[in-house]
Amino acid sequence: MTTLRSINPITGDAFCADFPVHEESDVERACILAEAAFDTYRAADHEVRARLLETIAEQILAIGDPLIEAAVRESGLPRARIEGERGRTIGQLRMFAEVVRAGNWLQVRIDPAQPDRTPLPRPDIRMRMIPLGPVAVFGASNFPLAFSTAGGDTASALAAGCPVVVKGHPAHPVTGMLVASAISRAVVECGLPEGVFQHLVGPSHELGAALVRNPRISAVGFTGSRAGGLALLTIAQARPVPIPFYAEMSSINPVLILPAALKARGAELGAQFISSLTMGAGQFCTNPGLIIAIAGDGLDAFTQAAIEAVQAAPAQVMLTGAIRDTYVAHTGALASHDALVTLACSVDSGDALRAGSYLFRTTAAQFLVEPGLGHEVFGASSMLIVCDDVGEQMAVLNALEGQLTATLHMEAGDHEMAQSLIPLLERKAGRILVNGWPTGVEVCHAMVHGGPFPATSDSRTTSVGSLAIDRFLRPVSYQNFTASLLPKELRGS
Amino acid sequence: MTTLRSINPITGDAFCADFPVHEESDVERACILAEAAFDTYRAADHEVRARLLETIAEQILAIGDPLIEAAVRESGLPRARIEGERGRTIGQLRMFAEVVRAGNWLQVRIDPAQPDRTPLPRPDIRMRMIPLGPVAVFGASNFPLAFSTAGGDTASALAAGCPVVVKGHPAHPVTGMLVASAISRAVVECGLPEGVFQHLVGPSHELGAALVRNPRISAVGFTGSRAGGLALLTIAQARPVPIPFYAEMSSINPVLILPAALKARGAELGAQFISSLTMGAGQFCTNPGLIIAIAGDGLDAFTQAAIEAVQAAPAQVMLTGAIRDTYVAHTGALASHDALVTLACSVDSGDALRAGSYLFRTTAAQFLVEPGLGHEVFGASSMLIVCDDVGEQMAVLNALEGQLTATLHMEAGDHEMAQSLIPLLERKAGRILVNGWPTGVEVCHAMVHGGPFPATSDSRTTSVGSLAIDRFLRPVSYQNFTASLLPKELRGS
Repeated sequence: MTTLRSINPITGDAFCADFPVHEESDVERACILAEAAFDTYRAADHEVRARLLETIAEQILAIGDPLIEAAVRESGLPRARIEGERGRTIGQLRMFAEVVRAGNWLQVRIDPAQPDRTPLPRPDIRMRMIPLGPVAVFGASNFPLAFSTAGGDTASALAAGCPVVVKGHPAHPVTGMLVASAISRAVVECGLPEGVFQHLVGPSHELGAALVRNPRISAVGFTGSRAGGLALLTIAQARPVPIPFYAEMSSINPVLILPAALKARGAELGAQFISSLTMGAGQFCTNPGLIIAIAGDGLDAFTQAAIEAVQAAPAQVMLTGAIRDTYVAHTGALASHDALVTLACSVDSGDALRAGSYLFRTTAAQFLVEPGLGHEVFGASSMLIVCDDVGEQMAVLNALEGQLTATLHMEAGDHEMAQSLIPLLERKAGRILVNGWPTGVEVCHAMVHGGPFPATSDSRTTSVGSLAIDRFLRPVSYQNFTASLLPKELRGS
Repeated sequence: MTTLRSINPITGDAFCADFPVHEESDVERACILAEAAFDTYRAADHEVRARLLETIAEQILAIGDPLIEAAVRESGLPRARIEGERGRTIGQLRMFAEVVRAGNWLQVRIDPAQPDRTPLPRPDIRMRMIPLGPVAVFGASNFPLAFSTAGGDTASALAAGCPVVVKGHPAHPVTGMLVASAISRAVVECGLPEGVFQHLVGPSHELGAALVRNPRISAVGFTGSRAGGLALLTIAQARPVPIPFYAEMSSINPVLILPAALKARGAELGAQFISSLTMGAGQFCTNPGLIIAIAGDGLDAFTQAAIEAVQAAPAQVMLTGAIRDTYVAHTGALASHDALVTLACSVDSGDALRAGSYLFRTTAAQFLVEPGLGHEVFGASSMLIVCDDVGEQMAVLNALEGQLTATLHMEAGDHEMAQSLIPLLERKAGRILVNGWPTGVEVCHAMVHGGPFPATSDSRTTSVGSLAIDRFLRPVSYQNFTASLLPKELRGS
């Protein structure tokens, strides 16, 4: 029998006894239950849906310290970070409860009958959004709470009225199990069928593939690697009935430092940059993996400050041994790459479980020859691209793939250049920042955590913020219905 | 050199001299121009965009009778129908002009800064929708105006701010050329770059495939056959950068006649049904291709009235010889199918260019064994499925693929049954009608002309009505922007 082991990445030790994992027959069973629960759940009063989300939040808080300890031990992330992430997770659930109550997601449209219109009368036509059906959610490794079992995908799918089947990330099985139990308790407490939420764990890719392939699944939310996302996307597309597949998978989040800002704040920006880069061992989707600057006043100060900050940054534990090994291999390849200069790396800690930060430099000309240098390296590695002029800066931007974020550091004197860059940044990214750093994704109504391929598989959506609910809805028109047959929210004029 | 011939389906004669068609190099050139026009067009004032749509409407009207004559001659459709369709086309363009002005499609969201929030201040974050980029549109054969060159896809894409490259349907090349010229004149009149609209014609599938494959195309709108839609969908998915592909391609539009309605209005419904079925030789996406009824009072009257109406319906010219040949082959196969009874067909007109209407009957039990009988037959062919009871009726519905529409004919006594059916109908179709016929798709705000696969390739959308603009938009967040850098519509609090 296959088993799964929970590993503490700080020590390399197992956290507890191995436990059994789910198999493909469990996928089928879970999907049947989810499908069976769908009509009941979507027909439940919206207040019940909102209460479910709030009850999940309460049940997660009720786990208390054991949840924090499990997440810390399984992720190697600091306790304060995990506590903050729990707050974010709770906050997301509560935000979606309010979103459900507000009801804007229904997008109600009413075209009243025009019985006297010529040449033909117009019938009464009304529209609302309905949920797609059971949703599969793939938890991410880097946010064991906020982008995992009860993360944004689960919260927004439940808010939309879709049952959820989570494929838990094998890097935090205990955390996932604790959260899954909390959700299941909330489902029972709200008097809903158990199929509204289910949790599958297992290390094999086949488990996830079977879930995406299952005909009862109507949409998928995924946060993870590009390779994993593309493999599942292909499966979703190849189904007899293709389904929406929302993968958030790859971004290097270019940061442009415009000339006046570089001159005015070079050293300060260099230090801030490395602080954003190295936070959480750089394991953020919005990590600043590329700095683009034009050679000129302040570049030396920026570079020097960044180098010093990298050298001072301690090597850090990464989420899993596999993630660390991949990071070490990628940064090693970059360090020996002809087109790159290694500006700085962290002092070797002597601890094989920890990985240091890296800062590389190249020229725009070299980067343009080899745009593959712009592929994401998951971890605290970044690259400074030095451009000769604005034209080269535009060319580098043009050569980039789609991104979650793009950032401008600017002063008043950079205004014109910023204005000329924004149309291109809009086409490359889902979120554009001025004078900030891309790490730290606010959960709010105007947030877009999404972007053109390969940042995500569907640029029309976001996985963070209240707009995320739209991913799991589709419109239905009701023509010439009597009031008593209409859904409640479409009655009245 | 390849040429294209405009054929009059009524006579089988060529309409005018053959004319040269576009080749793959023209696709590349068109996409380069569209891409080059994109930033200019999307940056243009929304009033300019609205004026463009209105000017296209004016220019189409200005063609006058030659356009009507061309469309009649190339489609075989009656003059009154083509005149009505021109009105619909003009109406759509003007509706989207108003949609652009109203600006709801921007979906503006503003989360103001909270500088005093603890533990961390919140930056100002604002969101709006922006256009995806150049859009490829594939015109349909059955609406040479309203779903073709200047049809709903073109109007909604232009409204969204996307340049359009139309692949004109080879069945109406003269009509397409006339409309394309009208659009191009409007583009010039509005002072916009020519790349905002382009038109390619040619009989080869390769031309359309090259268009979908072109890296400068950001989304595709398609109305046509299931085979054609799926072939292009596969190409869109297999691109290095996959793009949204909106195909409206296959629906048999089940009509359920509930017991009280059957009893009260059997004969009346039978006649209405065939009137809806045979209109325009049945060449509508929303043609009623399936009637589902429970054996009981009124069924004989319904059947008898329908049989008489079919027998009285004259054979009709179809849009093209190929469409007629396919229809004749499909209805021939159904007529000789063991599981079907041929209830009626039109009297043979002796004119090989015309095709008759068909009505078949089967039982729920037989249909459930062979659900392939539910595949669309494009033309005036329909099938009555007789169920023994409500359970069989539900089973038949469950066995159906996704649909554009589903219809209930009911009386007060059917209310409870209707209520129990609606959740299933919502999952099967994009539009549900009560006591009407699905042909005749109103252009309004609440219309959904869409539905689960294979009715369309993307159930989250509609190709008719004002919501269609959403297909060509994606959200972008602006974080910590000064007012002067923000897009106009995001300024202010």
